[in-house]
Amino acid sequence: MRIGFIGLGKMGSGMARNLLAAGHEVTVWNRSPDKARALEPNGARVAFTPAEACAGAEAVITMLADDEAVHGVVFWANGIADSLARGAIHISCSTISTELARLLAAEHATRGHGYLSVPVFGRPEAAANAKLLVVAAGQKEIIDYCQPLFNAIGRQTIVAGPEPWQANLVKICGNFTIASVIETLSEAFAAIKKSGVNPEVFLGAMNELYNSPVYKGYGQAVMTPGTEPGGFALRLGLKDVRLMLKAADECSAPMPMASVIRDNMLSGVANGQGEFDWSSLALVAARNAGIKA
Amino acid sequence: MRIGFIGLGKMGSGMARNLLAAGHEVTVWNRSPDKARALEPNGARVAFTPAEACAGAEAVITMLADDEAVHGVVFWANGIADSLARGAIHISCSTISTELARLLAAEHATRGHGYLSVPVFGRPEAAANAKLLVVAAGQKEIIDYCQPLFNAIGRQTIVAGPEPWQANLVKICGNFTIASVIETLSEAFAAIKKSGVNPEVFLGAMNELYNSPVYKGYGQAVMTPGTEPGGFALRLGLKDVRLMLKAADECSAPMPMASVIRDNMLSGVANGQGEFDWSSLALVAARNAGIKA
Amino acid sequence: MRIGFIGLGKMGSGMARNLLAAGHEVTVWNRSPDKARALEPNGARVAFTPAEACAGAEAVITMLADDEAVHGVVFWANGIADSLARGAIHISCSTISTELARLLAAEHATRGHGYLSVPVFGRPEAAANAKLLVVAAGQKEIIDYCQPLFNAIGRQTIVAGPEPWQANLVKICGNFTIASVIETLSEAFAAIKKSGVNPEVFLGAMNELYNSPVYKGYGQAVMTPGTEPGGFALRLGLKDVRLMLKAADECSAPMPMASVIRDNMLSGVANGQGEFDWSSLALVAARNAGIKA
Amino acid sequence: MRIGFIGLGKMGSGMARNLLAAGHEVTVWNRSPDKARALEPNGARVAFTPAEACAGAEAVITMLADDEAVHGVVFWANGIADSLARGAIHISCSTISTELARLLAAEHATRGHGYLSVPVFGRPEAAANAKLLVVAAGQKEIIDYCQPLFNAIGRQTIVAGPEPWQANLVKICGNFTIASVIETLSEAFAAIKKSGVNPEVFLGAMNELYNSPVYKGYGQAVMTPGTEPGGFALRLGLKDVRLMLKAADECSAPMPMASVIRDNMLSGVANGQGEFDWSSLALVAARNAGIKA
Repeated sequence: MRIGFIGLGKMGSGMARNLLAAGHEVTVWNRSPDKARALEPNGARVAFTPAEACAGAEAVITMLADDEAVHGVVFWANGIADSLARGAIHISCSTISTELARLLAAEHATRGHGYLSVPVFGRPEAAANAKLLVVAAGQKEIIDYCQPLFNAIGRQTIVAGPEPWQANLVKICGNFTIASVIETLSEAFAAIKKSGVNPEVFLGAMNELYNSPVYKGYGQAVMTPGTEPGGFALRLGLKDVRLMLKAADECSAPMPMASVIRDNMLSGVANGQGEFDWSSLALVAARNAGIKA
Repeated sequence: MRIGFIGLGKMGSGMARNLLAAGHEVTVWNRSPDKARALEPNGARVAFTPAEACAGAEAVITMLADDEAVHGVVFWANGIADSLARGAIHISCSTISTELARLLAAEHATRGHGYLSVPVFGRPEAAANAKLLVVAAGQKEIIDYCQPLFNAIGRQTIVAGPEPWQANLVKICGNFTIASVIETLSEAFAAIKKSGVNPEVFLGAMNELYNSPVYKGYGQAVMTPGTEPGGFALRLGLKDVRLMLKAADECSAPMPMASVIRDNMLSGVANGQGEFDWSSLALVAARNAGIKA
Repeated sequence: MRIGFIGLGKMGSGMARNLLAAGHEVTVWNRSPDKARALEPNGARVAFTPAEACAGAEAVITMLADDEAVHGVVFWANGIADSLARGAIHISCSTISTELARLLAAEHATRGHGYLSVPVFGRPEAAANAKLLVVAAGQKEIIDYCQPLFNAIGRQTIVAGPEPWQANLVKICGNFTIASVIETLSEAFAAIKKSGVNPEVFLGAMNELYNSPVYKGYGQAVMTPGTEPGGFALRLGLKDVRLMLKAADECSAPMPMASVIRDNMLSGVANGQGEFDWSSLALVAARNAGIKA
Repeated sequence: MRIGFIGLGKMGSGMARNLLAAGHEVTVWNRSPDKARALEPNGARVAFTPAEACAGAEAVITMLADDEAVHGVVFWANGIADSLARGAIHISCSTISTELARLLAAEHATRGHGYLSVPVFGRPEAAANAKLLVVAAGQKEIIDYCQPLFNAIGRQTIVAGPEPWQANLVKICGNFTIASVIETLSEAFAAIKKSGVNPEVFLGAMNELYNSPVYKGYGQAVMTPGTEPGGFALRLGLKDVRLMLKAADECSAPMPMASVIRDNMLSGVANGQGEFDWSSLALVAARNAGIKA
């Protein structure tokens, strides 16, 4: 397929590479163009505007940081809304609000575009290795048509329902559960360390108990939280928990655990951890327990 | 080995059966004697008092509901403290406070007894199938000596440290993490259901994301919470979260997630769910979201 | 002064009456016109649009439910933005977000209007009796010029600073503290009642301890929460706590008490209490404690 | 009356002085005897043991830090339990658990003693000036008999009920509400300061809104939190919130605000603030908001 790919951060670069590797024709655009040019050796064509990435594309994929970025790239001058051909499809892989997903579905429909919300689970390594868990929602025919693209980037596709926002809600809830794992382990490790129990023992018990890649990865990260920028930034994790609280507010469902996580992430950001990996939430629990860095 | 086994609830019965199956001589005692007699066909001898279960035993295992029960069975008349032979070992498998574990270690030491804290992870099915995750702490020599017993009841033994209470803290922290999974999924399912997303889709995504037996079991239970007494009672889950908060308080480590869980479990108990499985925490989240049963 | 007054709910009606009583010429507009006509006997002129209320006015006062209502009445067709004379002043008394206050200040400035944020503390009785606590922010000269209006509606004026949004933040924080009083007393009364202590005794102790009109009013209301629509609706209280969390999020200040209140208010709304007075938050605490209505 | 007075901390010293000033015969005991001897110029006799303070006394008053201290002074060797004359009365003014109050009532009854729980509201200044708010519970006849003592130390006596623990619950709930005021203001001031609003303006608005001595005192203290040991220590405030959560747990009433306060107080203690006044809770909110000291 001929596709446009917009947004070449840690996640998007890996996804675009895998689409190229699977034989698709990919025109890429990124706000800072060096990340776009980095894909030329893989066969990507580089566009100067989102509109150029849409020209001639059967589908355009967006993989951007937040609602604001997606909204801009769709609706601003030289954006997707005015450039995508009738009958072409916008596949939004970003973790965005259910509200924006509804707006995109409606606006694309009036322009004769297809629209799918297709958020993905997985960190940059999974994106690089085509091991993402893909959650797709929208019209079944469009999902079926795009399935080869999902196959190129992920290990499995889950269909969340006929309304695009449904995939976003599943993704937002899923990220909330991961944030909860991080906060929960952060609190447990603080108690373990202050009590004088070997944290490696607790980590081993957790891995034996859960036997889960999520706990394996985050257990280690939370036990020895880094302060290097990298991975999935805490400020983006905070953005996702905000999306959770917003979606829950819209349907009047209280989520006290999400509130605790939000408050502690905010404390992390207030204390300079915004660009650290979100496992640095452990530093907030440690600080509150009086553990010196 | 010749052992006494005290406490034949859902967990203890399975453990005692597996010890018998492994060829150990087991004398059992339970407050309500019918559960003790139920093990006679498996070769158990039935004691009329804890003291009788200790008579001639190299080790006595306790598997009881809470601190109060363990304290009673050890220190009351005809209890373990006055009945166990010098050089014999008390293996406490119950989920008890670190404070009681320290008391037991000290009191047994003055009587010439060995003492191990050996809490276990796993639900009744795992106890029945000798698949428990065993966490042992205490003197290394005593742990080594008792290893055949742990092999008979569990799939693996993790050594938490030389102080018995260290195993209790690992167990308490571990149970806290499971309670957190239950509460987190409860909140997420409430939002998913109220928003009109198919909860089976979310469950599928969670299982694919975590690929963990804990999420498989509790994901299903939380999605369709039962109101039948059974499994691991909510009031016992509440007891464990109280132990977590107490241990964390002792070392001045705030655990806001544990506080949320405690408050919601308390709400469950206040609303008549004390004997339901602790996955019925989902009913609290549902009630708070105005979801009718 | 010649003034327009837009928004004649429980608060606005009393404020407009007091402005009329103080001798000001007041043209009123309300979405449902019957509330506007009800002020004709007091000397008000009734406008058919917000624009008409602005015609010839030195100042226009808005007292509306939320950001959306204020935004609409300012920026939609026949709105304030396009109708107010150069040099005239918009006085926004509604409890709105600091973000909207900043937008209004900027937009009015470009049109040559003055703009003040002048939120008020007090319930409808205080509005009716000109006993409001007025918090004003904006250019000092404009505040001084409008002081007679504030004198007509309130018992005292506090100047919050030179930036209009500063008054909104003071108001939002103030309402948060009242919400906290309500939630705190709700929890305390639940424990008092369930324990079997006479709640009147506790109420008496609180009144003696605080000797404050806020505690007197809300203490009684929380002890015997009503289920009649009236007073200050819970859904509006929830709106204000959302504004608090939003303002705190913008400056990265975690507010865990506000989070708890938000979650419980959401539970109240989810359980059909949206139109009850916000003291009905007590019903959420009672429900969570298993107290039957 | 001839009375014994045990516990001469910041509160007890003032209370004992006022009893002496009112003409009662007071024999005092304190763990560190210098504080006892400091009352000799006021006419106090100094006892060497609690038993001596009970000798010949119609009533003995205890004003101690916590459950442990009261329990020890009553039940240990030379304690009140074995020394108080039949028919004499133990008046417990300490903030203790409802559980200990029930134990004291039962144990004193078996010895033919009267027992009242008479906790007091007020800080050391109020104790010094006989302005305490006295909450008394127990048999009406005994309360009436002791009324002259309460008149000597307080401005008003509230009778909480016929069971002594009822006064303790009222006191515990009351202290919880004060802790909530402190935490609420701490969060609000953090947002106010980070946003760039003059905190004095917010303090002024609060005082105008609440017009309450509690807000006047704590508003100022929270706005400019001190780090000097003094006032009512944070570790004692934490003790009281623990008593609240314990009492609420016993009757299955969740108190999420109390949980937040407990967690933040614990963070304060973990960060070295245990001996600071409990208004230093504001430092926790400030730290979490990234405000530098």
